Amino acid sequence: MSSLEERRALAVVLAAGEGTRMKSALPKVLHRVAGRSMLAHVLASVEKSRIADVAVVIGPGRDDVRAEARRAWPQSQVFVQEQRRGTAHAVLAARDALASGCDDLLILFADTPLVTPETMQALRRALAEGATVAVLGFRPASPLGYGRLVQDSSGALLAIKEEKDASPAERAVDLCNAGLMALDGRRALELLTQIDDRNAKGEFYLTDVVKLARAAGLKASVVLGEESEVLGVNDRVQLAEAERIAQNRLRRAAMESGVTMIDPSSVYLCADAKIARDVTIEPHVWIGPKVEIGEGAVIHAFSHIESAKIGPGAHVGPFARLRPGADLGEGAKVGNFVEIKAAKIGPGAKVSHLTYLGDAEVGAEANIGAGTITCNYDGFLKYRTVIGEGAFIGSNSSLVAPVTVGAGAYVGSGSVVTKDVSADALAIARGRQVEKAGWARFFREKQSAKKAEK
Amino acid sequence: MSSLEERRALAVVLAAGEGTRMKSALPKVLHRVAGRSMLAHVLASVEKSRIADVAVVIGPGRDDVRAEARRAWPQSQVFVQEQRRGTAHAVLAARDALASGCDDLLILFADTPLVTPETMQALRRALAEGATVAVLGFRPASPLGYGRLVQDSSGALLAIKEEKDASPAERAVDLCNAGLMALDGRRALELLTQIDDRNAKGEFYLTDVVKLARAAGLKASVVLGEESEVLGVNDRVQLAEAERIAQNRLRRAAMESGVTMIDPSSVYLCADAKIARDVTIEPHVWIGPKVEIGEGAVIHAFSHIESAKIGPGAHVGPFARLRPGADLGEGAKVGNFVEIKAAKIGPGAKVSHLTYLGDAEVGAEANIGAGTITCNYDGFLKYRTVIGEGAFIGSNSSLVAPVTVGAGAYVGSGSVVTKDVSADALAIARGRQVEKAGWARFFREKQSAKKAEK
Amino acid sequence: MSSLEERRALAVVLAAGEGTRMKSALPKVLHRVAGRSMLAHVLASVEKSRIADVAVVIGPGRDDVRAEARRAWPQSQVFVQEQRRGTAHAVLAARDALASGCDDLLILFADTPLVTPETMQALRRALAEGATVAVLGFRPASPLGYGRLVQDSSGALLAIKEEKDASPAERAVDLCNAGLMALDGRRALELLTQIDDRNAKGEFYLTDVVKLARAAGLKASVVLGEESEVLGVNDRVQLAEAERIAQNRLRRAAMESGVTMIDPSSVYLCADAKIARDVTIEPHVWIGPKVEIGEGAVIHAFSHIESAKIGPGAHVGPFARLRPGADLGEGAKVGNFVEIKAAKIGPGAKVSHLTYLGDAEVGAEANIGAGTITCNYDGFLKYRTVIGEGAFIGSNSSLVAPVTVGAGAYVGSGSVVTKDVSADALAIARGRQVEKAGWARFFREKQSAKKAEK
Repeated sequence: MSSLEERRALAVVLAAGEGTRMKSALPKVLHRVAGRSMLAHVLASVEKSRIADVAVVIGPGRDDVRAEARRAWPQSQVFVQEQRRGTAHAVLAARDALASGCDDLLILFADTPLVTPETMQALRRALAEGATVAVLGFRPASPLGYGRLVQDSSGALLAIKEEKDASPAERAVDLCNAGLMALDGRRALELLTQIDDRNAKGEFYLTDVVKLARAAGLKASVVLGEESEVLGVNDRVQLAEAERIAQNRLRRAAMESGVTMIDPSSVYLCADAKIARDVTIEPHVWIGPKVEIGEGAVIHAFSHIESAKIGPGAHVGPFARLRPGADLGEGAKVGNFVEIKAAKIGPGAKVSHLTYLGDAEVGAEANIGAGTITCNYDGFLKYRTVIGEGAFIGSNSSLVAPVTVGAGAYVGSGSVVTKDVSADALAIARGRQVEKAGWARFFREKQSAKKAEK
Repeated sequence: MSSLEERRALAVVLAAGEGTRMKSALPKVLHRVAGRSMLAHVLASVEKSRIADVAVVIGPGRDDVRAEARRAWPQSQVFVQEQRRGTAHAVLAARDALASGCDDLLILFADTPLVTPETMQALRRALAEGATVAVLGFRPASPLGYGRLVQDSSGALLAIKEEKDASPAERAVDLCNAGLMALDGRRALELLTQIDDRNAKGEFYLTDVVKLARAAGLKASVVLGEESEVLGVNDRVQLAEAERIAQNRLRRAAMESGVTMIDPSSVYLCADAKIARDVTIEPHVWIGPKVEIGEGAVIHAFSHIESAKIGPGAHVGPFARLRPGADLGEGAKVGNFVEIKAAKIGPGAKVSHLTYLGDAEVGAEANIGAGTITCNYDGFLKYRTVIGEGAFIGSNSSLVAPVTVGAGAYVGSGSVVTKDVSADALAIARGRQVEKAGWARFFREKQSAKKAEK
Repeated sequence: MSSLEERRALAVVLAAGEGTRMKSALPKVLHRVAGRSMLAHVLASVEKSRIADVAVVIGPGRDDVRAEARRAWPQSQVFVQEQRRGTAHAVLAARDALASGCDDLLILFADTPLVTPETMQALRRALAEGATVAVLGFRPASPLGYGRLVQDSSGALLAIKEEKDASPAERAVDLCNAGLMALDGRRALELLTQIDDRNAKGEFYLTDVVKLARAAGLKASVVLGEESEVLGVNDRVQLAEAERIAQNRLRRAAMESGVTMIDPSSVYLCADAKIARDVTIEPHVWIGPKVEIGEGAVIHAFSHIESAKIGPGAHVGPFARLRPGADLGEGAKVGNFVEIKAAKIGPGAKVSHLTYLGDAEVGAEANIGAGTITCNYDGFLKYRTVIGEGAFIGSNSSLVAPVTVGAGAYVGSGSVVTKDVSADALAIARGRQVEKAGWARFFREKQSAKKAEK
């Protein structure tokens, strides 16, 4: 028995399924779970389990799946299964990858995205301990419809029996076939090419490998997984179930590392979120990809955050939207009905209400009044707004970029600022107030009459 | 046995219950599930099951229930049960409807809103197959407190036994009475009028009809329903449970037709929602009545949508509110903190941030800047705003309706537009910027001193 | 047997746990459930169960826990357990409180926040009925790892057996030790001081008191509680579970009193919320501390409410934020993307869209246009805005406080109001509109060229 580190492993990921039950123009394996395609999930777990080589088998004409495989794992080899003739046939589409030799061959399914790296390692460990075939089994709440894993008294795997072919005793077995398996890389090609299509559907079934291995006097064994990790996704209901399981894993991990979630079931995370301890996340928060949150920050309810950095002790929301490139300094505050895009908010700065800041830089301790808007787009190009430290932007101001408001400067409420403002100066740009006495009474009478006519 | 199409059916819907446990000023059957009154749910299922005639029995003085019955089913006959003397007494309040004759009489309860059209048809089919009485049964998780359906070995219904009157053997029966039933319309009146009130409460119980039918040598049978569809709503906890079941049905149907919901449990639908395939709905979305969403549209988190039409490929939210009459063209975008009411947004037009558009028309590819507001109301009347194709409205603008901005025109940021703008022109309406050097420093010192005094 | 009212009771609340598994800078017992620290939850239940005296045992240096104990129960005595030497040792840290005498001594845990007042009274009732020790038991879904409560045939408690010390027969017992207990106050000190630390960990275990009482011929008994109320919180996952249980209790109580919640699982309440009947709460609503909602009010989805008063028939949201001091009159309306802080909104007044009102008073039937902002802060001090009855504030206006708009006055859209407006007058303060013909076409060509170069 050699250690896993010394063994060369290849994962073949089957991603050629058509997924007609998804009723989608998008290939099944590109549907997303926790913000990431199912294919990318499998590849990420392969990487975490330290498997060196990957071959992805796709359907004909699926350039989008090929591109996603390459994006997620640039060195992956991609093979096309030209015809759909069963799982063993699909694996053999990657024959060239198998032929280049490996110790451990893992056969994975891109529509089974929740298998953990630990389970992949357990399958490899079974090979290292002498098995030629290691099949992943699980005990479902209801075994109805699954193939059963028939073992001898020592636990060795005798056969995989489809339910329709199983004897009553075999049907009573609650250990079922999850589909995934590992094969000794030195015997894999030999065994796989012996599989035939002499069955009702005329397909080459991967499960036959157990029978063939046994016939050759080789050992087959079972590795036990959780039902939650072997969920296969064939329709949108199962996709939603996979999402639920993935989210629960992410939530639990965050809480165990010291994050408070008042209602974890209403918080959505991406797998790559970095959240420090003593962060509090109120209910109803959406966290998209590439988010970092510093210690002690508070994310209030109804916040929507993507590709953003939130400094320690910062406060976000309720009703905040942080878009890509939002970068909040320590103790900064972004309040309700505020959108931040590609903008750096300095330490202690406050952007509390009804504001849009895009393509901007806000200095430390600046105060951005309610209703402030950076006019960063002219219909063609985008421009930057720079606001100095300690500046005060009066409410309902429009900052027409490119524009700079100097440190400590003050912009009067309701101003449309089109020219730079000097440090410590006051800028004001608005109309003068005039009053027409009694006008409103007259107007009221006139309009009431009109309304009554209608 | 005749086909259901050839049989004339009448549904009597009992809607006279007082519902004191709801603790509400609103009659129980007008409380809503999935955006629709419980009474209307029952009537909608009656319609789907192709029953031609409906009689609704209401309590005295319940004009609001009468109005809802008429709204949901204009040809329905409404009868008043003047005294509360039991379920059979309630059915007989509709004696005139029964007297006009039918093949199948269904007796339904307006506070049992989740019974499916399939179940209604199954009850009728039992009549078509020779039963005089067909009772809906179900197997609850816990039968405690329910009446038991006692059958003979052939499955024929012998009796409905209330729990307190049941023998130990009868109590062991887990098939329970859901309350709903179907009667042969040619025997119904004869059987119902035989029911007496010689019991502890002095009420006329509909369940006695089984005993009477059997005594007359007629056949009674059982139709099996799901516990989830026979839930009766007597308090707000049960109302919330009915809502949960109804929502889960709507969510599952949407997913099965090709809609992606990342967390279906946080998406609320109305029964009449029309959602095309490959629509993605993020978590925390509220969809009220009369909503249509075109293929490939994306509804981001925290969106609130009612009586609105969303074109193919459009993007909505996060934090968008579409109110009645919002009509988004193909590929249009309505972004965060944006409210749209009675407004048509042309194909490819963008309304991305902090905007209110009411009573408006926006041309294709127009760009509405952040903070734009249509001033459509003067306290008495509403006025329209028309924005031409490809127009650009600068941020924080106010468009004082009635007003038209021509195609390709440009409105400067922060403008208050009160007069029409010509096509391809620039309109600008704002104060000129002035600067007072050093004012902010002086102000800061003065106010700091004041604050320190406090 | 004396009545509980006549018995003097003392609760000792153990709050010295370090809570390292919380991974938090905040002491464990100060983490919040339903908006209130766990310690305060226990103290609130103690108060509801009419226990007169409280002693809180804290860890050394925990001034924040001491302060919270005093805040929640000003007369509480606080004791410091200098070393961590077991639960009995912790109780004896409050020796001075015990020495002053009581009839019933309750020993509670600040990290077990969901124990009900009814259960506390049941423990005391067991003492009143003759027990010297009354231990709280529960039947967990899985008893694995819990100490078992071993009873004789009469139900008297014989021993608490830790799982590792239990015989197979004892392990089969599904009645487990919740940790909480009540002791006869006249025997408590005598029994507690007999407990020794002769065990593997060298700690003084409170559970030994059962053995000692039995040895002295005294009666020990068991009081049965629910698993949901004895949940101990040691990490954030358990904290989230405690929150879930607490929220479900609050939701159910609200619904039972006549509040409609469409999806109760998405509504968050604080224990002190006062919600009248026929209030409807849509999904996704956050209700923080000190909220009162009057009969028939509707809280639409995505609303965030703290320390606010909402009058009968008022409408709030969707997407409304009511901050402390928001006070809405009967039939008032606060709509989407609106924030109200320290402001009184008169009966029938409407604040419908994209508005910030802070430190303000709005008269009855006033209409506040979309995008209105009270400029209440100059960077140093806050100022008030007063809007008279029936006034009409045009959209996108800025009201620079301190400022008063008289009753029935009218402010033109887009105005910056810096001076008071007389009753029934029109105030207007904005730039005049000018138009540059053809400018937009020229600009479009120029910018398109620039963009193409990029």
